[in-house]
Amino acid sequence: MSEREYETYSLGNVQLQRGGTVPNAKLAYKTFGTLNAEKDNVIVYPTWFSGFVKNNEWLIGQGRALDPDLYFIIVVCPLGNGQSSSPSNTPEPYDQARFPHVTLYDNVFLQHRFITEHFGITKIKLVVGWSMGAQQTYQWGCLYPEMVERIAPFCGSAKTSPHNFVFLEGVKAALTADAAFEEGWYSSPPKKGLRALARVYAGWGYSQPFYKQETWRKLGYHSLEDFLVGFWEGFFLQRDANNMLSMLWTWQNADISDNHVFKGDLSQALSAIQAKATVMPAKIDLYFPPEDNEWEVTQMNNAKFAVIPGVWGHFAGDGNNEEDTLFIDNELKSLLASSV
Amino acid sequence: MSEREYETYSLGNVQLQRGGTVPNAKLAYKTFGTLNAEKDNVIVYPTWFSGFVKNNEWLIGQGRALDPDLYFIIVVCPLGNGQSSSPSNTPEPYDQARFPHVTLYDNVFLQHRFITEHFGITKIKLVVGWSMGAQQTYQWGCLYPEMVERIAPFCGSAKTSPHNFVFLEGVKAALTADAAFEEGWYSSPPKKGLRALARVYAGWGYSQPFYKQETWRKLGYHSLEDFLVGFWEGFFLQRDANNMLSMLWTWQNADISDNHVFKGDLSQALSAIQAKATVMPAKIDLYFPPEDNEWEVTQMNNAKFAVIPGVWGHFAGDGNNEEDTLFIDNELKSLLASSV
Repeated sequence: MSEREYETYSLGNVQLQRGGTVPNAKLAYKTFGTLNAEKDNVIVYPTWFSGFVKNNEWLIGQGRALDPDLYFIIVVCPLGNGQSSSPSNTPEPYDQARFPHVTLYDNVFLQHRFITEHFGITKIKLVVGWSMGAQQTYQWGCLYPEMVERIAPFCGSAKTSPHNFVFLEGVKAALTADAAFEEGWYSSPPKKGLRALARVYAGWGYSQPFYKQETWRKLGYHSLEDFLVGFWEGFFLQRDANNMLSMLWTWQNADISDNHVFKGDLSQALSAIQAKATVMPAKIDLYFPPEDNEWEVTQMNNAKFAVIPGVWGHFAGDGNNEEDTLFIDNELKSLLASSV
Repeated sequence: MSEREYETYSLGNVQLQRGGTVPNAKLAYKTFGTLNAEKDNVIVYPTWFSGFVKNNEWLIGQGRALDPDLYFIIVVCPLGNGQSSSPSNTPEPYDQARFPHVTLYDNVFLQHRFITEHFGITKIKLVVGWSMGAQQTYQWGCLYPEMVERIAPFCGSAKTSPHNFVFLEGVKAALTADAAFEEGWYSSPPKKGLRALARVYAGWGYSQPFYKQETWRKLGYHSLEDFLVGFWEGFFLQRDANNMLSMLWTWQNADISDNHVFKGDLSQALSAIQAKATVMPAKIDLYFPPEDNEWEVTQMNNAKFAVIPGVWGHFAGDGNNEEDTLFIDNELKSLLASSV
């Protein structure tokens, strides 16, 4: 059986929360395992900032918590990631710099439409995600409390903190300082800006002791500069600048309560989550620090707070460190095994 | 009496550690108070990355530890700051992108020449400095142990950590992504790049809770964006791009042991410090974290470790928060009052 990288689901013309339209909107997704007859073995696993479908696959596998022999796992992409509708793949006039603002609410509302319309799913065993994927996880929990039995956000928050916002201002400024960006109307990629963005990101993604201990050697690099070029620049050069700015806007403005349901009351949105939750920050995450999750957990009904130890910082949730992956996987196994 | 912003001292043609030359090199400085007859009331207070003489003055004053009624305080600037010899003020052919690499050792070696030649000083009661100024403080202590009685580095380290290096890679990449930078050969300032640099810096300079608590309101700003424009962009737009890159190189490569005296043995360099020391990191400094100083202190002979509490992060040492300033000032008073 040949395997496609991802499928797409068409949502038709979609009107967004902030007033924009995405014509013939598509969600990119990939499923693992088989939906059972009762349709009660569903796991939803949204992707993250600049993440493709394939970047989520490390957490899925036989023997893992996300075991395709047991569960029907749906990896789904927010708008702007380059595979779902994005600045780079939407026809004129909504392309490039004119791709409309997409909110966290929009993404989860559309994902809900997709899995109910396309699969007829009414119960979700678990929503899980990293970083911006964690933000979508929280949003799923409070928007569809009767549907979502468990959530496991890791290295993310229910609302983007002001410091996180400022970190992203730096990321954005580095990219857009490149004149080749042409205010979003480039015909060839603004590579200098993409590389600058990558270097700015590098200091934030991993922790101070990660760099001190030269832990990047575990990723196969033999010098710090090699890591900056090979890992960081290499990753972001494969991404489209407008796509990243679209997702960056979504991230900067992420707030699970910023919608007609919760009207900006974050505490109310958190307490609306009925799902059993395991919230996993990384100990030295520089932009989603554990302190933010600690408060969130006090507002939720049934949430466990489990800090991923170690030095990998935010990228503890990237799947590259087996120790962190095992920590996350074990927590997911416990959560999935527990009754709700 | 009219007051000049700063004086300069000419060092002649200077050969630098990494092989470059600065023709007719000048150190910018300003003194406060009077050198007494015994020449034993001297405090040396070097400036920091992009800091001018005036940016150090907040710590000096009657009733403060650095009291000009008691001490002869010399504020002195490293090369590259725009007032001492720098890319922006050195004649061809050593100007702009050709200004040679300056090391931490070079700066302190030249400052030592200046204060011995010009003032005939042989004893220093205290060397004190913030950030890159703290790095110069450590270098003073180990290069001239018989001369320096006390040191008080705050929010700095004896050697730039790899994570700090990576943070600066992001700062540099944001600035140089601007095509107007022209590889250092600009005739008018690369303003977009300077603004990008400022936005990258903003996330690092203050801590996560500083932004969460909107502590920037204490600096007189009424919105986060206003703070980013008014404080951050406003500051760095007044600086020269090549000057900042020159100092940034010095900072990235700072290591008090990287010279003929200590041959890269950091532990030996730290233990060569005879001065009584008070080392003051800020609790949530994101690029000079307290952990680095904690280790340094174990290698020093007579060092106190005193963490500046609160949420101001690295900028606890910028003089804008009276509480932090009082903490530093009190520690300096104790240190100056103690026998050596």
